[in-house]
Amino acid sequence: MSKQEIGVIGMAVMGRNLALNIESRGYSVSIYNRSKDKTDEVMAEHPGKQLVPYYTLPDFVNSLEKPRRILIMVQAGRGTDAVIDELKPLLDKGDIIIDGGNAYFEDTIRRNKALSEAGFNFIGAGVSGGEEGALKGPSIMPGGQKEAYQLVAPILEKIAAEVNGEPCVAYIGPNGAGHYVKMAHNGIEYGDMQLIAESYSLLKHAAGLTNDEIAAVFSEWNKGELNSYLIEITADIFKHKEPSGIHLVDVILDAAGNKGTGKWTSQSALDLGEPLSLITESVFARYLSAIKDQRVAAAKLLSGPQTAIESDNKAELIEKIRKALYMGKIISYAQGFAQLKAASQHYSWSLNYGEIAKIFRAGCIIRAQFLQKITEAYESEEEVVNLLLTPYFKQTVEAYQQSLRDVVSFAVQHGIPVPTLSAAIAYYDSYRSAVLPANLIQAQRDYFGAHTYQRTDKEGVFHTDWMGIEGKK
Amino acid sequence: MSKQEIGVIGMAVMGRNLALNIESRGYSVSIYNRSKDKTDEVMAEHPGKQLVPYYTLPDFVNSLEKPRRILIMVQAGRGTDAVIDELKPLLDKGDIIIDGGNAYFEDTIRRNKALSEAGFNFIGAGVSGGEEGALKGPSIMPGGQKEAYQLVAPILEKIAAEVNGEPCVAYIGPNGAGHYVKMAHNGIEYGDMQLIAESYSLLKHAAGLTNDEIAAVFSEWNKGELNSYLIEITADIFKHKEPSGIHLVDVILDAAGNKGTGKWTSQSALDLGEPLSLITESVFARYLSAIKDQRVAAAKLLSGPQTAIESDNKAELIEKIRKALYMGKIISYAQGFAQLKAASQHYSWSLNYGEIAKIFRAGCIIRAQFLQKITEAYESEEEVVNLLLTPYFKQTVEAYQQSLRDVVSFAVQHGIPVPTLSAAIAYYDSYRSAVLPANLIQAQRDYFGAHTYQRTDKEGVFHTDWMGIEGKK
Repeated sequence: MSKQEIGVIGMAVMGRNLALNIESRGYSVSIYNRSKDKTDEVMAEHPGKQLVPYYTLPDFVNSLEKPRRILIMVQAGRGTDAVIDELKPLLDKGDIIIDGGNAYFEDTIRRNKALSEAGFNFIGAGVSGGEEGALKGPSIMPGGQKEAYQLVAPILEKIAAEVNGEPCVAYIGPNGAGHYVKMAHNGIEYGDMQLIAESYSLLKHAAGLTNDEIAAVFSEWNKGELNSYLIEITADIFKHKEPSGIHLVDVILDAAGNKGTGKWTSQSALDLGEPLSLITESVFARYLSAIKDQRVAAAKLLSGPQTAIESDNKAELIEKIRKALYMGKIISYAQGFAQLKAASQHYSWSLNYGEIAKIFRAGCIIRAQFLQKITEAYESEEEVVNLLLTPYFKQTVEAYQQSLRDVVSFAVQHGIPVPTLSAAIAYYDSYRSAVLPANLIQAQRDYFGAHTYQRTDKEGVFHTDWMGIEGKK
Repeated sequence: MSKQEIGVIGMAVMGRNLALNIESRGYSVSIYNRSKDKTDEVMAEHPGKQLVPYYTLPDFVNSLEKPRRILIMVQAGRGTDAVIDELKPLLDKGDIIIDGGNAYFEDTIRRNKALSEAGFNFIGAGVSGGEEGALKGPSIMPGGQKEAYQLVAPILEKIAAEVNGEPCVAYIGPNGAGHYVKMAHNGIEYGDMQLIAESYSLLKHAAGLTNDEIAAVFSEWNKGELNSYLIEITADIFKHKEPSGIHLVDVILDAAGNKGTGKWTSQSALDLGEPLSLITESVFARYLSAIKDQRVAAAKLLSGPQTAIESDNKAELIEKIRKALYMGKIISYAQGFAQLKAASQHYSWSLNYGEIAKIFRAGCIIRAQFLQKITEAYESEEEVVNLLLTPYFKQTVEAYQQSLRDVVSFAVQHGIPVPTLSAAIAYYDSYRSAVLPANLIQAQRDYFGAHTYQRTDKEGVFHTDWMGIEGKK
């Protein structure tokens, strides 16, 4: 019996769709699921494919060409560890496990180390694009042993999304690099979504637009520099009517869920000392949305200003919101890519930022025309310290900042919450401040905790006895 | 030979000062330090005290009354674990180890569990007040076995700071509760300091005040509802002149350091699903201050609006800044105490919030008149969901919100970064919004990831095939 070229473990929707995607590119695929039913379901729903079902892990493993290529698509965390533990005694040295789940990158680092010590290859691959992407072409971010990546690259390049003939997959870096970049992608996705939500709120409450008008605005925006998957589906969402004629978006509960990847991104930024304020505000905005009961109660108790609708210069206001949104997006990516740089240094990953932006251009949720600008920024300069300092972004934020200022002050004066747009302008103004009031913070820390300080006029580390008892250190 | 009543391990400044504080209340104290020199130094500098030096741990342990009370004041982390490992074979069941260092609360939970299983008591005690507090009266937050706490309570109550005869110490809760509350205290301290720094920046750049005028403003503010240690020392700092006549604050480098407790607070909030936006922005503000070189470079490249000084209504602007600062502080504490509540539920600590606010009233860095209002809020209501909903705070934020709005929009329009003041108003407006635009976020998540949503008009969990292919789940 001939062997299959790759095996997929886990027949939930993502695993199933990836298996079908791989098969559609001409590969024979062994499939396995812990419960038999799911495997049978896949086989029944997709007859005549080069999918070969197995019902025990040993049979599954034996069915594969060596070195074996096994893609795991199971519940991240314990699920992944359980499958790996079961697989290990069945594998040969040099076999390759690919974890395509949403693993926490520190887990991937740990698994890569343990498996590597046992002689196996382990690739932690971030996969973005949801169900549809998995089936038709996701964006893939693989990290692990480079030589192992070469052995799976032909398959990954065929199943990935494409832009101008280039596949949205590339080797990201050692051990946890792929899952880290996927995590950062998701963090950026949180930021994008919250920025769009605040823009929607402004279009509705400040410009007084109807859902149909909002749909038209997002459709229009999607033709310009904001062109992206999330703007496109936002337009779709505002067009969607129930059979009763009401817009579905109006009856969806405003309590956002999350699966933790945004949170991880913020926590990592905090560990790395990186000011990831915009994405973090977007995570907190979801948390605030989730306490709907408290908000409903608070709305009755806590007053605010009158929300007056701007009716004189609606077109001008809409254009300001567009510019504010685009500048917010630029700030968010500048923060996100600065974090990638810090992570790359900290974990010794040698990330290629331009390549990462390229991978994001299709297949994944944050796909956007704008990412081309990021790739260009990294390709035209040896060492990008911060995207805001590169020509295109510098020019754009300088031109758009007044719109962002106007929109944020309007919202603040009218009681419309804009946490991420506010964080964007605060970051911009902090980042371009040669002098910040942190001299006072250092003075306070030295005053109460003798934490010492540096001076602008001479070298050294100083301590002052602010209360006048001791001398200088 | 008679035994000592308590022993202190670690003769760095905090351990030394706590030992001296305890001794000054009439207790005999054994002291020990890993290197002999420090112990000798303490003995030489403080002759005639009831301090008894020991140079080996066995001698130190043998010198103590049973059950032994041993306060560890060493480097948090591995230092603490090393001392505990050395101590364990020397102790008897029922002995009490008190870790007064800045331990991460999860470490304290782990240590409490391991020591408890071995028959020992372990109290993780947050100690705030810096060097001076340690010597004269800190604020103390002890967590651990309640019965063990009773055995050390008399000593802790004597060495703690006092307000109206009440000591600033109380049993906080089991295992890591004390160190958690200390961590939250430090997070709040970060927020307070950044709010004051932004106020300073506004007084300087928007109101155009000199250092002497700023000192006078803070002195004046310290007489009213902002009365607090941090406002008091801020006034001192602006008065402090070098022998050359320049104000010291002007030559202190604006790059703020941090020791990680603010970061931990934010990371815990992210884990607990709590929107701790203000403190988190204050942590990010420190990170941004630390990249001074980047900021200096960016200042030359990225333009901003003209910073025009408001000269017509200086007094009015100063009063607005005062109100904005006070409202920012209220928002920060509302967020911080909401986080304590979430932590208490998550870790089963049964925290007493009013009591915690009481402990903060003296000894520690965030000590403030304002904390009395928090204690009163918790004492007058059975179940406080959020401090903003209690009468005093509700009334104050409603009255002050316009000042905060005016200050933030002024700052945003004039290019003065106010990340925490901006976060404050964004939180206020989000929290009092019965409806937020998170319905769009849920629609997007369902669109690209089939994450489902709830509806406002009927029960259940729904999925829409937004692209029009499948049916409803």
